[in-house]
Amino acid sequence: MQDHSLPRLPQDHNHPPRRSAYIGRAVTRLEDRPLVLGAGRFVGDMDVPHQLWARVVRSAHAVGRIAGIDTSAARAMPGVAAVWTAEDLGNLPHIPFRATKIEGLDPYTQPCLAKDRVRYVGEPVAIVFAEDPYLAEDAAEAVFAEIDEDMAPILDARAEPGEFAPGHSSAPLTLTKGYGDVDAAFAGAAHVVELDLAIGRHSGIPMETRGALAAWDHGRERLDLWGATKRPHWNRDRLAEMFGLSPSQVALHEPHVGGGFGIRGELYPEDILVCLAAMRLGRPVKWVEDRREHMMAANQSREQQHLIRAAVDAEGRLLAIDETLHHDQGAYVRTHGARVADMSIGLLLGPYRVPAYAARAHFRLTAKTPAATYRAPSRFESTFVRERLMDAIATRTGLDPLDLRRRNFIASSEMPFDRHMTALESDVILDSGDYEGLLGKAAEFCGLDALRAEAAERRAKGECVGVGLGYFVEKSGLGPSELVRLTVHPDGGIEIVTGAASLGQGMETAVAQIAADTLGADYQACRVIHGDTDRISHGWGAHASRVTVMTGEATRRAAETVRAKACEMAASLLDCTPDAINIDGGIATCRTSDASVTLAEIAAALDPVSPKRGDRDPGLAAEAWYHNKHMNYPYGAHVALVIIDRDTGHVRLDRYWITYDVGRAINPAMIEGQIVGGLAQGLGGALLEEFRFDDQGQPLSVTFADYLMPTSAEMPDCRVQILQDAPSPLNPLGIKGSGEAGVTGAGAAIACAIDDALQRPGLVTRLPVTPQYLRARIAEYDAARAGDAI
Amino acid sequence: MQDHSLPRLPQDHNHPPRRSAYIGRAVTRLEDRPLVLGAGRFVGDMDVPHQLWARVVRSAHAVGRIAGIDTSAARAMPGVAAVWTAEDLGNLPHIPFRATKIEGLDPYTQPCLAKDRVRYVGEPVAIVFAEDPYLAEDAAEAVFAEIDEDMAPILDARAEPGEFAPGHSSAPLTLTKGYGDVDAAFAGAAHVVELDLAIGRHSGIPMETRGALAAWDHGRERLDLWGATKRPHWNRDRLAEMFGLSPSQVALHEPHVGGGFGIRGELYPEDILVCLAAMRLGRPVKWVEDRREHMMAANQSREQQHLIRAAVDAEGRLLAIDETLHHDQGAYVRTHGARVADMSIGLLLGPYRVPAYAARAHFRLTAKTPAATYRAPSRFESTFVRERLMDAIATRTGLDPLDLRRRNFIASSEMPFDRHMTALESDVILDSGDYEGLLGKAAEFCGLDALRAEAAERRAKGECVGVGLGYFVEKSGLGPSELVRLTVHPDGGIEIVTGAASLGQGMETAVAQIAADTLGADYQACRVIHGDTDRISHGWGAHASRVTVMTGEATRRAAETVRAKACEMAASLLDCTPDAINIDGGIATCRTSDASVTLAEIAAALDPVSPKRGDRDPGLAAEAWYHNKHMNYPYGAHVALVIIDRDTGHVRLDRYWITYDVGRAINPAMIEGQIVGGLAQGLGGALLEEFRFDDQGQPLSVTFADYLMPTSAEMPDCRVQILQDAPSPLNPLGIKGSGEAGVTGAGAAIACAIDDALQRPGLVTRLPVTPQYLRARIAEYDAARAGDAI
Repeated sequence: MQDHSLPRLPQDHNHPPRRSAYIGRAVTRLEDRPLVLGAGRFVGDMDVPHQLWARVVRSAHAVGRIAGIDTSAARAMPGVAAVWTAEDLGNLPHIPFRATKIEGLDPYTQPCLAKDRVRYVGEPVAIVFAEDPYLAEDAAEAVFAEIDEDMAPILDARAEPGEFAPGHSSAPLTLTKGYGDVDAAFAGAAHVVELDLAIGRHSGIPMETRGALAAWDHGRERLDLWGATKRPHWNRDRLAEMFGLSPSQVALHEPHVGGGFGIRGELYPEDILVCLAAMRLGRPVKWVEDRREHMMAANQSREQQHLIRAAVDAEGRLLAIDETLHHDQGAYVRTHGARVADMSIGLLLGPYRVPAYAARAHFRLTAKTPAATYRAPSRFESTFVRERLMDAIATRTGLDPLDLRRRNFIASSEMPFDRHMTALESDVILDSGDYEGLLGKAAEFCGLDALRAEAAERRAKGECVGVGLGYFVEKSGLGPSELVRLTVHPDGGIEIVTGAASLGQGMETAVAQIAADTLGADYQACRVIHGDTDRISHGWGAHASRVTVMTGEATRRAAETVRAKACEMAASLLDCTPDAINIDGGIATCRTSDASVTLAEIAAALDPVSPKRGDRDPGLAAEAWYHNKHMNYPYGAHVALVIIDRDTGHVRLDRYWITYDVGRAINPAMIEGQIVGGLAQGLGGALLEEFRFDDQGQPLSVTFADYLMPTSAEMPDCRVQILQDAPSPLNPLGIKGSGEAGVTGAGAAIACAIDDALQRPGLVTRLPVTPQYLRARIAEYDAARAGDAI
Repeated sequence: MQDHSLPRLPQDHNHPPRRSAYIGRAVTRLEDRPLVLGAGRFVGDMDVPHQLWARVVRSAHAVGRIAGIDTSAARAMPGVAAVWTAEDLGNLPHIPFRATKIEGLDPYTQPCLAKDRVRYVGEPVAIVFAEDPYLAEDAAEAVFAEIDEDMAPILDARAEPGEFAPGHSSAPLTLTKGYGDVDAAFAGAAHVVELDLAIGRHSGIPMETRGALAAWDHGRERLDLWGATKRPHWNRDRLAEMFGLSPSQVALHEPHVGGGFGIRGELYPEDILVCLAAMRLGRPVKWVEDRREHMMAANQSREQQHLIRAAVDAEGRLLAIDETLHHDQGAYVRTHGARVADMSIGLLLGPYRVPAYAARAHFRLTAKTPAATYRAPSRFESTFVRERLMDAIATRTGLDPLDLRRRNFIASSEMPFDRHMTALESDVILDSGDYEGLLGKAAEFCGLDALRAEAAERRAKGECVGVGLGYFVEKSGLGPSELVRLTVHPDGGIEIVTGAASLGQGMETAVAQIAADTLGADYQACRVIHGDTDRISHGWGAHASRVTVMTGEATRRAAETVRAKACEMAASLLDCTPDAINIDGGIATCRTSDASVTLAEIAAALDPVSPKRGDRDPGLAAEAWYHNKHMNYPYGAHVALVIIDRDTGHVRLDRYWITYDVGRAINPAMIEGQIVGGLAQGLGGALLEEFRFDDQGQPLSVTFADYLMPTSAEMPDCRVQILQDAPSPLNPLGIKGSGEAGVTGAGAAIACAIDDALQRPGLVTRLPVTPQYLRARIAEYDAARAGDAI
């Protein structure tokens, strides 16, 4: 583990913190208490008296017309309250888009229960409500859906576009982005390098499966839903719209969450169905999916094929990139719309200066589980693609890979650097970064020269050892807005309410650290309330590495306002001027007289009924908004040392180094935890995890025997170097997000290291690098080289 | 039922409403839907999985030392989770004061479980927690408390002060109020009239008994309590203090409530015990009292003895009043401190000009259930006393009772009229009133002359019929503050959040009417959220006829702010100036172009992510405070026509008229409902209801067979005249409260009518006038007259 003492920020940083008792320190996480006590309350732990249990009947076919659904046997079972098919849903709308809604996608939204046709195995076709979960499961098995497989499933995103369902093309959309004269660049290039690359389908597999518990108060006409986090306010508003309710009639409540990773908390069919059932059946309804369901129902991700070409000059400088992406969306377009495809080409260029760029993303429907975002969505994929390309250019030009990168990095003097493209509906303007500086520090951190020498030496002795590097630019701090209400109670307790959500990432602690430092208080006095639509009017939840940036800055602003009010009140109580007041450790002291009052006493003096309040607004509290139209862009590098078993093709990560510039580290231990945890998922995607389907669209990876998750045994010794060389100019603390960096560079670095270990440049063209793939790919590679040699 | 069309406010009223689509109209109550559907959720309807049930073991003795409590049998019963006595509570504080805390009362606060001694029958001595309520009750019966009755109970507040408990006097306090030279006035008086009067002990007996359900989230360290309404924020803060938690760790939630009347929702021992048990036992705990418990455990009220003397000049003008009150507090001083005694002498003078006044309230402990406020606390009692006095003066001076009152009324030209006294910790300054005008209208409303003639005629024919009048001044709109947050959602729904509470009084509707008229919207679009400490930072609950005044004015202010923002945004959308915008029916129209947008569209334009928002703060929403240091003073008159059965002494109310000036009537049907409902309680107190105790302090009235509640059979035809002649100058709408007027004058008017029917002036000196009392009193009265005649 690394030393948590951080480099000091440059003295000329334009927003120095007032003090930093907590910011930058690896303080203990506030949210861990219930979890380490075993007292977390996950949705599975929650029950409401008289609740029914729901069980979804899922399609066993990847494609076909629904000839009929026989629910009679299920309905007749004692303890079954209702069995619904699409016909029972009336005019219930399809699940709406919340992001990257592009014209043409509407017909591809998902209904809550399949109507007329099924489009993937696992699609909900009916739902059973019964007195207990066992009865519900038994009854669901008694529902028989007759499916007429009237066409072959489309399963390859690169297949010729055709009819995916009657009247619906499998190719609804091609997104394009770019600038500059790509053709001219290619015409004048010294080298043209082309790669055909693929990333397999995998996803976030949180320890806790999804679940939902809905209750309808018939008298007060109010709906409560526990379970669907990530975007509680957005989900609330959409549920209200779907059911014809006002937002104030619907409340979402966030329980503890066993991992989100982007996939939990989107609005899924099941969330909507349990709400509708609670309203219609007049009883609370609970649903918890099992692992098998999760593996075919929750959002999947990553599956893409890239044909990428680079035009390069004689010195190895990029002249242009031309990119063709086939994005495998699965059978429906869910809440994210075309976001992952859009980001994939919008953020592909990473840290490099690329004079001309042309990209097209073919958005393709396939008869598989719908895809959406998963931790580092598009960046895991595009970093793999771009860094494979850079490695190939290095090979082609004979340049050292690091030197090649240095030649192409955008310089820190060019920041902010406008890509003149958009991603996530915002302009891509790299806010700050010293890409070359970080590369040097990353190389130093892992001792890259020595490492390469070690690998070469071990290879010479017969081991199959290689070193690889992947460089990446992340994005974080997505707006548009966040709101925080901060209150100091008369007992000195500090309550911070945000519409952000917690998926375990440590946001309570980060927010408390910022509040405490800004206010001059104890961070353990802070209680951070989140994920509950009843507690605050607006919120954007937890996604896109945005919480520490957005909620953090809104918290800082609210705390600044509260601090100013506290100083003014303290000055009145201590008979001095507000600027003579210093607040530290929850105590406001007058610098001239040394007299002091506590924040608790100040809050008590501001009580509505306190005679000391005067005409001041009651309460030591403030609300603050932070609006932000631009993302910011942290960046980093992964370095992997791999050892390969030549006989089996098994790749083992031996050692690993991640260097990451977060602008400003609020809690280095939490960042390190995020990064190391992310690496587990990155290595899963690089080496192990894949959702596979047979040629009829039957999923082959719905258990942990078939879908291989990394365990601690697969995890390498991972060292993390956190840099703060490029604070974001977009927020005063300079914070950038750090939730995804452990994933982003893993595919690229591991692929590079495998090439190196096997001394076959450009060997890896597809993730995950399973033993089967690797053995086959070596044979193919060597055969092609042999052919070249003839 | 009366015609709900109200007299128009004078044109020169200084705060004319912008429009009055709803204010002043008897619109349907918003809160009735769940209740008429049978879908109300009272605390008894609420359950949390794994909850325990609590049952209180109560003292069977009114006084004595606790020699021991044997809980072993109860503890051994299967299904019993715990049995606690005072020893198990550790240092749990006594129940604190929230009102009229006067030095010297601290030793009289109530512990949650009796320690060392018991002080009244029904006092909690132990509490049992078990798996179901039946087990809990059985186990509670198996707890044996050995009480050593070591002294005689003090049961009469006029008894010589003594030791109530070792070291505690039965007479902890005498409050005094007054001004002017009383002795001189009496010395120079033409007449001195003295009365010795008493009011019996009775109380609010809500249809729903008390209950509480507490849950502790051990992981998040958070306590939730359902049930204890009336003052949710105050109760939350006190619970937090008692348990060493921060207010943000405690939340109170108001379920539906089956009547409050001032007694429900104060902080009682049981509320605290269920919370403590939930925290200690790690399971939710529910408690619902049965009726018998309610009749000896919930706050009782009213019991007072008054020795009142008036000095009067030859023309019947009051020169001075001298008043000695003995206030029977019962065995402990609960949350109200000395409030009822304080108000009794602070508000006794009602509508009359009294040049000199001296009053002393002897606050006495007795071995009975503790007393506190019950609807119209102190005003029912003091109106009876004062109006008895005025009737006696009329008899003595030979003046017509109405004429006597006219001679003594404070004139409307003298308003505001400062009494130079305090009550409820605020200065008694009568804000507005035309007392003489109302008396005339009241006489006209009931046709008083004709009524008197009718009664005389019927008496002449042998019937025992009489007419009586009671004039009163109420108080309402107690501050100090209230906060409202009003939000127009993008669907046009209007959410109004207040820290006030609902006890069934119609506050949702009144608040919605004010919001809708101020905003120019549909009142049915409003959703009023109340009684939930999680939803708003501050609140003062529902008591003291304050909600429509305080929350109403805070709502008006919030709605004004929202309306101004809506006009500005609409002007921007419609390309005109804000002052050209008129909002009506939820539609903002530009007066010049006739173009319009809905409030929903304006709210959508102000969404944080709306491009139309510009730099405006997000949301069509506002918070507003209303601070108010002064109560206001509505006033009215009751007129009763009674028929008495000479043989039995049974008094029947035949017809009844109430005239009441509320300043500004928001919803006349709701006011009428409040007043008629109040009369039922007033007649109960005047004729039926009394908690009686035997000479050992054993309660004799713990069932509805012994404690007589009025039913619809006892209710007279009651007509209500609502006046708006004296709007309160303290709030722009001129509102005064109207929750208690139906009670206040009942004792006075009924006593007067009984005197009249029996043609025995000054006959009634005590309430309730039960048949037994009346027969005995007639005999006593006639004997005294006969004695006089000798």
